Amino acid sequence: MKRQSLRATDMAVQAVSDALAHAHLPKSEVTMLVAGNMLSGTLDRQRQLATLIAEQADLRGIEATLVETSCSSGAAAVRHGFMAVAGGFHDLTVVCGVERMTHAEHADITTALATASDWEREGGQGETFITLNARLMRHYMEAYRVDHADFAHFSVNAHRNALHNPHALLHKSITHEDYMQSRFLTDPIKLLDAPPICDGAAAVILATEERAREAQRMGLPVVRVNASTIGTDSLSLDQRRDVLSLDGAKRSARLAYQQAGMTPADVDLFELHDAYTVIVALSLEAAGFAEAGRGVHVGKDGEITPSGSLPIATMGGLKARGHPVGATGVYQIVESFLQLTEQGGVNQVPNAQVAMTQSLGGTGATVVTHLLSRVG
Amino acid sequence: MKRQSLRATDMAVQAVSDALAHAHLPKSEVTMLVAGNMLSGTLDRQRQLATLIAEQADLRGIEATLVETSCSSGAAAVRHGFMAVAGGFHDLTVVCGVERMTHAEHADITTALATASDWEREGGQGETFITLNARLMRHYMEAYRVDHADFAHFSVNAHRNALHNPHALLHKSITHEDYMQSRFLTDPIKLLDAPPICDGAAAVILATEERAREAQRMGLPVVRVNASTIGTDSLSLDQRRDVLSLDGAKRSARLAYQQAGMTPADVDLFELHDAYTVIVALSLEAAGFAEAGRGVHVGKDGEITPSGSLPIATMGGLKARGHPVGATGVYQIVESFLQLTEQGGVNQVPNAQVAMTQSLGGTGATVVTHLLSRVG
Repeated sequence: MKRQSLRATDMAVQAVSDALAHAHLPKSEVTMLVAGNMLSGTLDRQRQLATLIAEQADLRGIEATLVETSCSSGAAAVRHGFMAVAGGFHDLTVVCGVERMTHAEHADITTALATASDWEREGGQGETFITLNARLMRHYMEAYRVDHADFAHFSVNAHRNALHNPHALLHKSITHEDYMQSRFLTDPIKLLDAPPICDGAAAVILATEERAREAQRMGLPVVRVNASTIGTDSLSLDQRRDVLSLDGAKRSARLAYQQAGMTPADVDLFELHDAYTVIVALSLEAAGFAEAGRGVHVGKDGEITPSGSLPIATMGGLKARGHPVGATGVYQIVESFLQLTEQGGVNQVPNAQVAMTQSLGGTGATVVTHLLSRVG
Repeated sequence: MKRQSLRATDMAVQAVSDALAHAHLPKSEVTMLVAGNMLSGTLDRQRQLATLIAEQADLRGIEATLVETSCSSGAAAVRHGFMAVAGGFHDLTVVCGVERMTHAEHADITTALATASDWEREGGQGETFITLNARLMRHYMEAYRVDHADFAHFSVNAHRNALHNPHALLHKSITHEDYMQSRFLTDPIKLLDAPPICDGAAAVILATEERAREAQRMGLPVVRVNASTIGTDSLSLDQRRDVLSLDGAKRSARLAYQQAGMTPADVDLFELHDAYTVIVALSLEAAGFAEAGRGVHVGKDGEITPSGSLPIATMGGLKARGHPVGATGVYQIVESFLQLTEQGGVNQVPNAQVAMTQSLGGTGATVVTHLLSRVG
């Protein structure tokens, strides 16, 4: 979304109101709102944003807090909403991710996004998320002797899937050749490796099993949350055990499989953090879908398309749906919900039973994983 | 604290390490860290701060998130840590509040703090927390026909208590006359109505009942969390139902009494949000300790001193211990813990059994209340 005239709160209020309307829930029944957001305090000079959203969404009075883990803020907000509901503190919690960036100057956005890095070691030394991901991609290409062309299919798949998603920012099909010819931002990162700057808001409602069953009896679509986890790693690439291993993602995924009693073989689609194509490869490896160095090759035979064996970025992913940073993790949950309830339209993954979502803060410092499943 | 050379992470790591050492806990047993912070993203250009604190405190890998509700961020982090532990998701969680402000230019701090207001209606129109609290104080003085002199004892009490707190910023006893003669910041707010700008970090460890009993058997001091709640209100004063009623604080306190099965009569000390003296009066009213318009008179006969019937700001409060905004809510929990475990020193409240803490975001938009009690 790119609507410079809308404030972050307006976008968030719209998402919250839509979610409540879809769930046929009167506002009086919601007792908690958790917001995920990264940049409002800086770019909009607005803090306490969760409380302001609650106020403007006609939910004044309820518990409201904002969770920030940079680019995975939305997913971390879902994690906290999950604990509030599954722990017995609230029956109904609305979680909203929101980010507004396009109204700011490009340089200000770049600097603001770099606050997700270790500022002392990275952002403050001139690194941006493009240069950091360029380092990762260069390492990957050298270590595993692969080329630019090996990353193209991730971008092509994302753009193709976004075509049929009305909420996607980029409705533009691209070919392998388009990818190869796109200009370098910072070698080896090309324009078509990177996500667009954008605005966006998304919301989900988390409910106790009892309330969810009630909704189901009313004919409303619901899904189950089988796992909700967070794993972390150093913020800076230099401090990692192995720069080509997303240890935070590995830990988060391992905990998620444990919580859910599942293995990678159970996952029917994976909404991963395809902010950069190299992150797709590393995420596939970290979540157990490929050995080290093999992630980049996953999908070359179409496995990652909606009809493949491991669909990813089914609604366009960060690359083409867009990456409104603090909102992205909630978008992934919404898109998985749509797939698990057969609302995926042209991009529907046939008989999707289990979806995994994974959202990364920075280059993999705060990683949030969810496993969701269809309710019988 | 005022240590310009220390980074926020350094202060936080020190607080976390001290808390773990006091609890005789090896770092390997802690699985979650929740941080409360308001301004790091802007004043230090560092987001994902919770994960960076975990990394630097030698806790890399564990779940880590940051909670932001402006000035009550620390207390809201405790609320989320409480849900994580009481809900059965973690056995041991460390909660750390941290704020670093004194290194910034005064104008930048004022603007940054104003992001806690409704920016569109207040901060962006030139309002600051001094002008907003001046409006509240003027309203209060006019509605209830009271004078400056009526507020003096809150400030005098806080300064007296801070004298014996080594962690307090201001070690300076003041008299009623000092208060009356202090200069106006914005009429009717005087210098001695307002808190100092300062840095600080504090940490607490939340544990399951089983782990707490273990610690107790080892001879370590522990307290029980009887209630943890959040209530909200509009950010802007103009949108309040009644500008002289802190409805968010009322809701938060009411929920807390319900959760704990307690009434105001059970509370032996109240660590309230004495950012401004008028907020003391309004908080006492909202939490059920005084009728509307009578809060300002509580304590004129010494009831609010440590040996009185309703001690407040027993370690100096926001006014004299200092108000490192995102850390303040955690300081209140620590100070209540000290009182309930007879570690209050000269300021010990005799036989303190139950402590209430209350932390306000903005002028009362996100209010977090905790009730803690001595363990027999």
